[in-house]
Amino acid sequence: MSELRIFGVEGIGEITRGTDLASAICAAVELCDGDVIVVTQKIVSKAEGAMVEVDPDDPLSHKPIVERESRRILRRRGELIISETKHGFVCANAGIDLSNVDRGQAALLPDDPDRSARRIRDAIRGKFGVTVGVVVSDTFGRPWRRGVTDVAIGSAGIVAVLDLRGTVDAYGRELMVTEVCVVDELCGAADLVMGKSTGVPVAVVRGVDPSWLGDVGGGVLTDVVRSPADDLFR
Amino acid sequence: MSELRIFGVEGIGEITRGTDLASAICAAVELCDGDVIVVTQKIVSKAEGAMVEVDPDDPLSHKPIVERESRRILRRRGELIISETKHGFVCANAGIDLSNVDRGQAALLPDDPDRSARRIRDAIRGKFGVTVGVVVSDTFGRPWRRGVTDVAIGSAGIVAVLDLRGTVDAYGRELMVTEVCVVDELCGAADLVMGKSTGVPVAVVRGVDPSWLGDVGGGVLTDVVRSPADDLFR
Repeated sequence: MSELRIFGVEGIGEITRGTDLASAICAAVELCDGDVIVVTQKIVSKAEGAMVEVDPDDPLSHKPIVERESRRILRRRGELIISETKHGFVCANAGIDLSNVDRGQAALLPDDPDRSARRIRDAIRGKFGVTVGVVVSDTFGRPWRRGVTDVAIGSAGIVAVLDLRGTVDAYGRELMVTEVCVVDELCGAADLVMGKSTGVPVAVVRGVDPSWLGDVGGGVLTDVVRSPADDLFR
Repeated sequence: MSELRIFGVEGIGEITRGTDLASAICAAVELCDGDVIVVTQKIVSKAEGAMVEVDPDDPLSHKPIVERESRRILRRRGELIISETKHGFVCANAGIDLSNVDRGQAALLPDDPDRSARRIRDAIRGKFGVTVGVVVSDTFGRPWRRGVTDVAIGSAGIVAVLDLRGTVDAYGRELMVTEVCVVDELCGAADLVMGKSTGVPVAVVRGVDPSWLGDVGGGVLTDVVRSPADDLFR
C-alpha cells in the first residue's frame, strides 16, 4: 500500500538575502533520497533578495509595485487586482506579499522560480549527497471556488505534470483525464502541515512515486503555466 | 512536529447501486477517530445510482447529458464544454465521467455531495463507532494552469474553508490571506496516493489538526462554491 508522510520542518531560522537555503534546510532536517521538499516562496524571495520597500503606514503603497510587476491586468475590484505576472502566473497582486516579512518590506515573486528550485536541489545534492525533488509553493486564489490553496510556482527533479496518456482505467478503457498537476497537489498537501502563521516554511513529502522523480526536464513555467492562446478564461 | 500520513485503501471491491459505502470502507481499513477519509466521486455516484446509459460506440453520446446537467454553459471549444452545474461547480462536461465505469455507462455527479459525505460519516460513526471527517473528491481542470487536480465536491465533519481572520503571522502582523480551502488541499493530497488508474477509490489522511474536525456546519456547496455575484471570471 503506497503511503505518503508529510511533515513540516521546524527550526529553519530567519532567512535573509544570501542565506544558503540548502544548508539551512539540511541543518534542520535529515533528508532521504527520493524526498520531495516543498519550500514556500517567501523564504526563496528573501534568500534571493527579491524584496522591495513599502510605506509601512500606507496599506496601499505596494499597489504601484503590483502594476509594475504585472504583464497584464485581468480584473480589478476595489483594491483587488488579478493580473498576469511576467512568469505567466495569474494571481492576486502579482504575488506580492506583505505577511511574514519585516515591516516596511514586501516580497516579490522570485525572478525564475524553476531556477530557484533547481539551485536548491543542486546544492542539496552537491553539499549533502541527497537527491530530492524541490517544489517552490505560493498561495493563490481561484475563480469559482472560495478560499486559497497552495500551488507550485517552481520545481526541479520531479515531473510537474504527470502525463497519463495511453494509461487505461481499472476497466481497461483509456483515461479521459490524462495530465495531472502533481506539483500543485504536493504544495496543497504541504500547506496542511505548514499553515500560514506558524513560521514553518518548508515541508518534506516522503514516499512519492519514484517514477515521478529524477533529472526530468521542465518545470512549472514550461509545463504548468497555460499559454494565453490555450486559455478560455483570460 | 505535526505530521500527516496519507494512504490509499485497497480491496474496497466493486461498488454498485445500493452498496453500503461505510461498510465497504470499514471492511477494508481500520479507521481511527480523527481520520479524514477522501472518497472519490465515482464510487459515491455508483453507490447512489447516479449513472446514465450512453452509446458505447459513440464517444459523443454523453454530450446531450452534459447540456442537461448544466445550469449555464461558460465556454465551448471543440468538444469541450465548461459549464456550471446545478451545484454551482464550474468544470468540464458537467462532471460527467466515462472512466472507471462499465462500458455503456456514464457517472453523473451526486445529487448533493455534502449529503453524500454526511451519510458516509454518520454510518461510520453509527455502525463502527469511529468519528471521522469525510470529503468527496473529483478531478477538475483549472484556467491558467495545465493539468487537473482533485478538489472537494462534498464534505462532512471537517471545516471546508479554514478562517484565519484575526490570526497573525510570525511577525505579529494580521494575515492578508485569511481563508484556506483545506478540503481541496486534502483531496489533492489524497490523489497523490490514489492515482487515476489504480482502482484505489478511497484514501485516509491521518494526523489532521483536530481543531478542523467535528460536528461543524457547512460543506462544500455552502462554503466553497463561490456565488456568481462574487466571481470575477464567469
